[in-house]
Amino acid sequence: MFTSKHSLTLYFTFFLALVSYGQQVQEMLKKPNGKYVLVIHGGAGTILKESMTPAKEAAYKEALTKALTIGKNILANGRKAIDAVTEAVKVLEDNPLFNAGKGAVFTNEGKNEMDAAIMDGSNLMAGSVASVTTIKNPITAARAVMEKSEHVMMVGKGAETFAKLQGCTIVPTSYFYTKERWDGLQKAKADDSTKATLDHDAPTPKKQHALKQLINKDYKYGTVGAVALDMYQHLAAATSTGGMTNKKYGRVGDAPIIGAGTYANDATCAISCTGWGEYYIRLVMAKSISDRMEFGGYTLINASKEMIMDKLSAIGGDGGLIAVDKDGNYTMPFNTAGMYRAAITSDGKIEIAIFK
Amino acid sequence: MFTSKHSLTLYFTFFLALVSYGQQVQEMLKKPNGKYVLVIHGGAGTILKESMTPAKEAAYKEALTKALTIGKNILANGRKAIDAVTEAVKVLEDNPLFNAGKGAVFTNEGKNEMDAAIMDGSNLMAGSVASVTTIKNPITAARAVMEKSEHVMMVGKGAETFAKLQGCTIVPTSYFYTKERWDGLQKAKADDSTKATLDHDAPTPKKQHALKQLINKDYKYGTVGAVALDMYQHLAAATSTGGMTNKKYGRVGDAPIIGAGTYANDATCAISCTGWGEYYIRLVMAKSISDRMEFGGYTLINASKEMIMDKLSAIGGDGGLIAVDKDGNYTMPFNTAGMYRAAITSDGKIEIAIFK
Repeated sequence: MFTSKHSLTLYFTFFLALVSYGQQVQEMLKKPNGKYVLVIHGGAGTILKESMTPAKEAAYKEALTKALTIGKNILANGRKAIDAVTEAVKVLEDNPLFNAGKGAVFTNEGKNEMDAAIMDGSNLMAGSVASVTTIKNPITAARAVMEKSEHVMMVGKGAETFAKLQGCTIVPTSYFYTKERWDGLQKAKADDSTKATLDHDAPTPKKQHALKQLINKDYKYGTVGAVALDMYQHLAAATSTGGMTNKKYGRVGDAPIIGAGTYANDATCAISCTGWGEYYIRLVMAKSISDRMEFGGYTLINASKEMIMDKLSAIGGDGGLIAVDKDGNYTMPFNTAGMYRAAITSDGKIEIAIFK
Repeated sequence: MFTSKHSLTLYFTFFLALVSYGQQVQEMLKKPNGKYVLVIHGGAGTILKESMTPAKEAAYKEALTKALTIGKNILANGRKAIDAVTEAVKVLEDNPLFNAGKGAVFTNEGKNEMDAAIMDGSNLMAGSVASVTTIKNPITAARAVMEKSEHVMMVGKGAETFAKLQGCTIVPTSYFYTKERWDGLQKAKADDSTKATLDHDAPTPKKQHALKQLINKDYKYGTVGAVALDMYQHLAAATSTGGMTNKKYGRVGDAPIIGAGTYANDATCAISCTGWGEYYIRLVMAKSISDRMEFGGYTLINASKEMIMDKLSAIGGDGGLIAVDKDGNYTMPFNTAGMYRAAITSDGKIEIAIFK
């Protein structure tokens, strides 16, 4: 005969079995499933086939391939998404072809002021730095902010002091000098004074056209980024940039803004943006895509497409983004002429592209 | 007999009538409907009835009333939400009781580094400044960034240079000194060294308790903000803060981050947050509420409640927010002991409160 004590024991045993089953399921979820995705970008803008030499195109593709390979090896070895995006972005920062780290554009004052952010979708931890001038790899400083401080965002000298304390490599500001970017600043300054004149004159169709041509120059673009899904179904995103050529007044774009240029959440997706930052901040671009998926029943592809092709275009902005979701779907939409981009998946698919 | 030309004319007339009707509807929508709402806050935190003197409580309520009245008069006179939130926040910035403008807390280095942001829901234009030290009313600088520049965010010296050029009032840094905040910094530094000792010792229940007591101190709080709905159904939000007492390394919180501490969108709501900024950035707090309304079928009240009471608490954060939606509903949730808050509506309802 069952006493109430027996019943209790039975219930308790059943309860323990349930808990144990729950733990096993959790463990199974944690085990690497062999599936991973890495997507990277080196900026969107007026990148036209006709203005690209074969040698330059090859150099860009080689750089993208290098970053992709280093990040992919990390994922293939069962390491985490957050490591893959950090290392892939470091490779792009070190390459003077891209507007981030070495190769960052110059501000109006002739400085290189860089921004970077990183986010771990598994715990919504995030780190970012803005307006830093002496950190060789700004993405490593963003990661240090995320992992070694109570803070999410640090700017200027303070961020540099912190990065140095955390062992990030510090370089003289001259490290960031490249002739191409310096020449770009001089050109932008000349164009800017032309623009000022055009702005003040009575607008004629010809002048309007000239103005538009100037504004369409790629002074506002250039970013690098990476998003990844690892074998543990964790997502991560990282973005790094030198910002806008000839920028003034301590301008900060969307790259270091969590939710705008950079966002990752295991429940939805990981996103890194590149484009005219002001528009991305106003749209809170990355979080808008994540929330469309979480609450609006959108797929990653549809949400990203709507934000870039409709919403961004509607308010006059341009650029692109890379995104991967928790199921391994990825997308690389842009509304500019081109975007340096590449993707690799565990099932052997590789995409490397520049133009539309 | 109808020729195809007649048909075309008919269609065209019908089309014109439709366009004209559409324009009339738009005009009607633009006409002041007499309905407005203004909600303000002066920060959330460990604000306990038992540690508040009647005189201090009266002073806080008087300050809130003043800001509410000035903002309300703007709305009642048919001016825009963006003006009401700017002026209400200026009043709170000028009052040393609140951690923004005069009365801003001190950084570890003994400086006052302030952040502010503003957003206009009618066109999604936004402006923000971070780490500024000489602008009397940082919210006016944020507004200048929104209205007088192509940018959204400016930081540090660059932001100050721009603000000065735009005619914002510049003051010597000594203007921001208040004895109470200076004493607060000394106390925070002493507590911080105690915390460092406690951190390094073996954790005993007593030490854990002491640590928790220290962490619970309100060093991380203090913000002012305003949200408004005007008679033209436009929404706006503004936030201003001195940040965290004893902050280091150029730390920036959620206040100047569009989508995190500040957001406005005529399609949904206007929000200004106050609390432990790092958690608000990671949750992209304000945009999460707007998107829950836009895509998740949430009401403003439910979306705000879920974010503050569930999501914020779940990751260990605390604080509150104020929000108003396009239909004039408003809410002021917080998960701390208190939040300085007040609201006024065109139908004569006034709420001014501090404690739970």
